[in-house]
Amino acid sequence: MASDSPFPVTAQNINPKVLKCEYAVRGEVVTLAQNLQKDLQANPGSHPFDEILYCNIGNPQSLGQQPITFFREVLALCDHPAILDKSETQGLFSTDAIQRAWQIVDQIPGRATGAYSHSQGVKGLRDTIAAGIEERDGFPANPDDIFMTDGASPAVHNMMQLLIRSENDGILCPIPQYPLYSASIALHGGCLVPYYLDEATGWGLEIPELKKQLEAAKSKGINVRALVVINPGNPTGQVLGEANQRDIVEFCKQEGLVLLADEVYQENVYVPEKKFHSFKKVSRSMGYGENDITLVSFQSVSKGYHGECGKRGGYMEVTGFSAEVREQIYKVASVNLCSNISGQILASLVMSPPKVGDESYDSFMAEKENILASLARRAKTLEDAFNKLEGVTCNKAEGAMYLFPQIRLSEKAIKAAEAANATPDNFYCKRLLNATGVVVVPGSGFGQVPGTWHFRCTILPPEEKIPAIVTRLTEFHEKFMDEFRD
Amino acid sequence: MASDSPFPVTAQNINPKVLKCEYAVRGEVVTLAQNLQKDLQANPGSHPFDEILYCNIGNPQSLGQQPITFFREVLALCDHPAILDKSETQGLFSTDAIQRAWQIVDQIPGRATGAYSHSQGVKGLRDTIAAGIEERDGFPANPDDIFMTDGASPAVHNMMQLLIRSENDGILCPIPQYPLYSASIALHGGCLVPYYLDEATGWGLEIPELKKQLEAAKSKGINVRALVVINPGNPTGQVLGEANQRDIVEFCKQEGLVLLADEVYQENVYVPEKKFHSFKKVSRSMGYGENDITLVSFQSVSKGYHGECGKRGGYMEVTGFSAEVREQIYKVASVNLCSNISGQILASLVMSPPKVGDESYDSFMAEKENILASLARRAKTLEDAFNKLEGVTCNKAEGAMYLFPQIRLSEKAIKAAEAANATPDNFYCKRLLNATGVVVVPGSGFGQVPGTWHFRCTILPPEEKIPAIVTRLTEFHEKFMDEFRD
Repeated sequence: MASDSPFPVTAQNINPKVLKCEYAVRGEVVTLAQNLQKDLQANPGSHPFDEILYCNIGNPQSLGQQPITFFREVLALCDHPAILDKSETQGLFSTDAIQRAWQIVDQIPGRATGAYSHSQGVKGLRDTIAAGIEERDGFPANPDDIFMTDGASPAVHNMMQLLIRSENDGILCPIPQYPLYSASIALHGGCLVPYYLDEATGWGLEIPELKKQLEAAKSKGINVRALVVINPGNPTGQVLGEANQRDIVEFCKQEGLVLLADEVYQENVYVPEKKFHSFKKVSRSMGYGENDITLVSFQSVSKGYHGECGKRGGYMEVTGFSAEVREQIYKVASVNLCSNISGQILASLVMSPPKVGDESYDSFMAEKENILASLARRAKTLEDAFNKLEGVTCNKAEGAMYLFPQIRLSEKAIKAAEAANATPDNFYCKRLLNATGVVVVPGSGFGQVPGTWHFRCTILPPEEKIPAIVTRLTEFHEKFMDEFRD
Repeated sequence: MASDSPFPVTAQNINPKVLKCEYAVRGEVVTLAQNLQKDLQANPGSHPFDEILYCNIGNPQSLGQQPITFFREVLALCDHPAILDKSETQGLFSTDAIQRAWQIVDQIPGRATGAYSHSQGVKGLRDTIAAGIEERDGFPANPDDIFMTDGASPAVHNMMQLLIRSENDGILCPIPQYPLYSASIALHGGCLVPYYLDEATGWGLEIPELKKQLEAAKSKGINVRALVVINPGNPTGQVLGEANQRDIVEFCKQEGLVLLADEVYQENVYVPEKKFHSFKKVSRSMGYGENDITLVSFQSVSKGYHGECGKRGGYMEVTGFSAEVREQIYKVASVNLCSNISGQILASLVMSPPKVGDESYDSFMAEKENILASLARRAKTLEDAFNKLEGVTCNKAEGAMYLFPQIRLSEKAIKAAEAANATPDNFYCKRLLNATGVVVVPGSGFGQVPGTWHFRCTILPPEEKIPAIVTRLTEFHEKFMDEFRD
């Protein structure tokens, strides 16, 4: 026991891996925002803004995005199947939602939506997901390759846990990256091997950079085990071209790396010239089968047009592992029994939404297309606004839910940040928050080329608020630049 | 890359902690059962039974237990709040379920049931849970101490991750134990320090045994950090007496151990002479406050009378940690964003069910009491049946969902097991399964005094099937004993 603390557990004697782990998306700036929000509630008018706008996290429904009606109808019916055959139900729910709910409830052994499922998820729902993947890719998918999880995060942890033995095991991660990866690698005691995305070419993923970083890591005795690719990119918003993806697959194959493909933004593509291709499709179209490439694809119900973050549904499709390793993956999954059934159901709906001819099809498509079109407009408006700011450049959000502008700060601003004991990007983001109520995440939480400064801003605020946000951002930025002009 | 495998990842190069982890509740016997089930579907009549009865896992609804209507009504309405103010809804749902759903939806910021919540869970739901704990214990509870999780398992992992730094950090665990603990300790690379429950005194938890094992571990250089107590016991079914609990609290305080209290079976007590007391209540009633004892209580929606395993709701109440350590617990929780909102809602319902005067109160109480009374009858019937078997003794299930009978096997049976390359309990359980379709878990999955053999059997099969199960078990056992008589 520490002699000067009444508590047996102290920051000095907990797992140092926990101390090392960082997660800026809910870090210091967000804590400040929560305090400001309490302040605003207690003393309205105490700040130069009426509300906090959380642009720190890809959480669409927290900013007013409405859920997809069909999905919610089915979930409600599966939660309370007792009403499925009541006449009032037909007045409240669409016919195809009722049909789908029957079908799902029938797929669950004993119709027990409250039972633990198979550790990988309900077989019937995995069948649906595999069929959805097949339709998306044009190549077969095996329901036994699907492991359903509470969102994509636990799936990522599972893989890190499997692959990382010590600090000498490395995982190639993009910089900037989504900090789940750095946090998970830190928690599992591994080594993040960074590769830089090229901001000048729209966050390009260049094979020579991968090779260079892999060699550098090897020369330090690091055993590089996997490559993380986030496509569409988070926080960077780029959508990879197919040729580039083929090179990445080839690189992983040649180097014996597991390809960990974060494909949770697969529905979020906003530019006509780009299209999402799964790494599974790309590798199969190169003729690489199960025995040629080890590939894990992560998918989530939290993103896409539906943005059902609170439902915690997701899956990983695991291919190219030996039977004995798959058994180990299954064993670890079974320690946690199963993921939540509503999330499993929702994952099956996302991979198999209403089809032409279904009663809900037209309204479903209208909801979906409205959301995606609005996101595309919001992305463009914010991108243009950032690019008009002095010293700021911002690549296009071709996909995902974020912009990651670079801000060039004066010596004076950098010194002021130093005096405030903050990195320049943190300093900027806190000032922005205090002045406007807009919460963005400093680039240091994602990683950036040393000496450059960025922040991540989601494209998710309600469309009608975007003009006001642009005005507030612009005013703040002008004042900030004036205040700290060298 | 392994030269003889096409796969870069092999059992030889994955994390050895993963290899080491075991989870018998879904282990070898269960895999055999799943194969038998497929067999039965493909070739009905191919085995001497018509169905597989899964008595391996505390999964009540998989065996036909019906969900609590009020809980499901509220969940369905929260999943699809658009119907809350429709007139048809009043015909389908009880008034208090509609009211409760309004109240819950209003507690969620922006009424966004599809948004990530605060990393610890929706504040309003944590308020409800804290109030429920207060009502249960008669001592205050702080909503900021509640961390909501996807079932109790992730909460246990969080704590192991926090406390375990290396194989020199030990966690005192009961033997027999619920294998989540051994699995989690193995995955986090720690050392399980066993203490034996005394079968002769109804699985008594004796302080001298705790002291003995603690000293033995210390003398081996193990830093013992926490004591796991499962109350009511899993797999052992005992309910601790209050005096015993006070001694345990005192022991943890004196030794500077974190008390990890698995209290997920708090609603499952079947004998009038025993009552559940939370360790929080016991320690507060001893005059120990926040600064005197470090205590984590785990609760789950999967157990109790409701048994909502598939919803993956749960929480841990974390008390007696310093502010800086709590920040670390919060940080790790925030890496995974939040637990699923339906599970959070259900956890709040479990801790705040309908009250006297509510429209649903009578039907809710009837559902609840029917289930608990039936579980008590099933426990008694199975206990009596086991105690009638030659060479078998079985302690009472005072609580929880399991019986853990001891089977005394002949030398001949033990040799036959050896020849079949199985432990004697595994051998017995597989033979039982092949003969009767009843799936139980060998005692070795939970730990047992060396040289003794047990199995865990849930009390969950439908009550009308219990007589047939008893007959089949008895017949099997008699034949087995005859076959292997020395």
